Amino acid sequence: MQVPHLKTALVGPMAEVERRILDNATRIERWFRLEWQEHTPPFYSSVDLRNSGFKIAPVDTNLYPGGFNNLSREMLPLAVQAAQAAIEKYCADARSLLLIPENHTRNLFYLQNVARLQGILRQTGLEVRLGSLNPEITAPTDFSLPDGSVLTVEPLVRNGDRLGLAGFDPCAILLNNDLSAGIPAVLRGLGSQVLLPPLHAGWAVRRKSNHFRAYDQVVAKFAAEIGIDPWLINPYFGVCGSINFHERTGEECLKGNVESIIPRIRAKYAEYGITEEPFVIVKADAGTYGMGIMSVTSPEEVVGLNRKQRNKMSVVKEGLEVSEVIIQEGVHTIEKVGGASAEPVVYMIDRFVVGSFYRVNTLRSATENLNAPGAHFEPLGIDAAGATPDPEDDPATAHNRFYTYGVISRLAALAASYELEQTASAAG
Amino acid sequence: MQVPHLKTALVGPMAEVERRILDNATRIERWFRLEWQEHTPPFYSSVDLRNSGFKIAPVDTNLYPGGFNNLSREMLPLAVQAAQAAIEKYCADARSLLLIPENHTRNLFYLQNVARLQGILRQTGLEVRLGSLNPEITAPTDFSLPDGSVLTVEPLVRNGDRLGLAGFDPCAILLNNDLSAGIPAVLRGLGSQVLLPPLHAGWAVRRKSNHFRAYDQVVAKFAAEIGIDPWLINPYFGVCGSINFHERTGEECLKGNVESIIPRIRAKYAEYGITEEPFVIVKADAGTYGMGIMSVTSPEEVVGLNRKQRNKMSVVKEGLEVSEVIIQEGVHTIEKVGGASAEPVVYMIDRFVVGSFYRVNTLRSATENLNAPGAHFEPLGIDAAGATPDPEDDPATAHNRFYTYGVISRLAALAASYELEQTASAAG
Repeated sequence: MQVPHLKTALVGPMAEVERRILDNATRIERWFRLEWQEHTPPFYSSVDLRNSGFKIAPVDTNLYPGGFNNLSREMLPLAVQAAQAAIEKYCADARSLLLIPENHTRNLFYLQNVARLQGILRQTGLEVRLGSLNPEITAPTDFSLPDGSVLTVEPLVRNGDRLGLAGFDPCAILLNNDLSAGIPAVLRGLGSQVLLPPLHAGWAVRRKSNHFRAYDQVVAKFAAEIGIDPWLINPYFGVCGSINFHERTGEECLKGNVESIIPRIRAKYAEYGITEEPFVIVKADAGTYGMGIMSVTSPEEVVGLNRKQRNKMSVVKEGLEVSEVIIQEGVHTIEKVGGASAEPVVYMIDRFVVGSFYRVNTLRSATENLNAPGAHFEPLGIDAAGATPDPEDDPATAHNRFYTYGVISRLAALAASYELEQTASAAG
Repeated sequence: MQVPHLKTALVGPMAEVERRILDNATRIERWFRLEWQEHTPPFYSSVDLRNSGFKIAPVDTNLYPGGFNNLSREMLPLAVQAAQAAIEKYCADARSLLLIPENHTRNLFYLQNVARLQGILRQTGLEVRLGSLNPEITAPTDFSLPDGSVLTVEPLVRNGDRLGLAGFDPCAILLNNDLSAGIPAVLRGLGSQVLLPPLHAGWAVRRKSNHFRAYDQVVAKFAAEIGIDPWLINPYFGVCGSINFHERTGEECLKGNVESIIPRIRAKYAEYGITEEPFVIVKADAGTYGMGIMSVTSPEEVVGLNRKQRNKMSVVKEGLEVSEVIIQEGVHTIEKVGGASAEPVVYMIDRFVVGSFYRVNTLRSATENLNAPGAHFEPLGIDAAGATPDPEDDPATAHNRFYTYGVISRLAALAASYELEQTASAAG
């Protein structure tokens, strides 16, 4: 479970950013410490990163991380410790926590994530039971896992302004369900219980564009703190708010955004002597799971999409129609695992990085979305916890490279804090 | 850096205790969570444990741990994370910390501990510099370490009620010097700075007997919580307050304590069918470093000591005369590393176990003090962080055995919190 390949000694602007980050580690940690005093971190989060060799940036910040099973076992003590520190904020004297997973209980990988998460949370001194939003779960239901253990998922029981299970009245409710299908009535108005994350973090309400606007704010501060060009860790983006791919409405907005962003990228590439071809990613502004995503190098490509392209772009998880779209500067990946394109995924609990793994996709190229069929996960060793930078060492060593990855990921988690503050009135 | 040997499947009463601890892990973690709300953990601590096969107990709780260099590198992220969580309590917006090491700056092992500690603390976002109580340090002095790095130790500068270095006015002062030689004037009356640990934690004031009295209280609560015989994790002890080994005064008190404790141990051994020979350890009530320690099986052995024995018992670190003595039930060790007697040493920062190693002594037997010439240290892997118990697994697996070790060590750290509260008026 070593970091499989990490030989990329970067040159050019990113070498300078990595050097600045390593040399300023103490300053950066203090900066985060002060920021976290003003902004409550998400209970947990995961960030998909791209390192193009000249740019390291988050491309997706997940507030319902579903891959704890992909962290290597040696990372677990870090996750337990972070959860212990986090839980005190919400449930200092609590005895019990209700965990609400996704409904797709036939996915064994996902169930292993739930089991892992339940194990971590139990180690904070909480009884942790699983309640399902799935109407098909009408009685306690057992699911067998490959390691021989059994997960029991129970029907939710609403009692006045409290939510629990039969005979189980928890202090806090932790969602591992991203609410893509909307906010269920059973979760509304839970006045006397802590609900984590808050309802407006769910994809029924959340927008990637709000997140990246918050990330702009965070990066502006951070870049000034250590003296770097914010672009080197932040992708340009634009938004189109009323698209209908089936009815071909909103194409002009898409085209306009591509026309605006591509030249800005090109100008930055020229500034840094980068000879790659600029591209943008067009994706749903809400939702996840790598559906509804296209990679575009010119404005013409988003006009007159054929039926297959329109179908692909128009629907995300839970069959939801896409009407809002984010157009984001594409960041290709130079990371390879076993010859295949890879991107680091960094897991956090509260303000702490608790581990990382690589998402590897043997079917996709370095400029494509890797969160797609063909993806698998490569667990990483403890160096990938990114807690032990050493400015005397080469920035390309695992503990240094993953320190940088951890810093960028924490910037994204901090952006999620800003975002959730700024959208707090939006849950309805 | 795997756990070298851990095959001891315990039987009898300790098997039952381990089983109870593993089965009650969630309850235990909640119990600790509640206790730590009422009692501030020591900033850091280390605990020497003994596992005799029928008893697991702390035999020494160090509030100035000096072996961070003996933790394996894979433990470091845990230490960094715990320090980040801890430092917020004391110096939420601080920029700098003064670390005061021991004076014996010629000990390369100790200097590596200081370097390691400095590295961990820097990762919390603090500038960490070293100031010495040693009057020989009159200018910044560099010490080269085996890895090629350099430690700079500077003379202290007192300025009114603040302590620092030239051009360095820290928010907090962390002692890694146990004050065996007394409380220096320069540390008194630091009204506006945080001093960790407090002065009365130093051996100039601290007494092991106060610690073990507090441990009695902690164990009484804990044993009731999970339903075990407190004796199985707690050694009997007595105290003699005015001994002079040179003048042979106080021998009767020693003898009386041995006469009282040995039969109590024998009764417990009979209760559990243990056929070992009971013994007690006689050691200085203040001080450390494994000096002034003897192992005794009958009251006669402490009467009429010869000159060599009296010399050995009468002096501890810094040449201090021993006048108070603790007589503690001996707990032999069944742990072996490479055939030699070994005992686990568990490191904590704040309320978190951050790692463990074995103290191994090829020159000593299972009933003797191992903290003596011939000792070396065996770093352990991440399982020895004791954060991931699994009641489905054998209690003798590393992650389960070290969970138990971590629980007992945290009981000792909690006892240190009680102790420091109870002795808070003693610093003078």
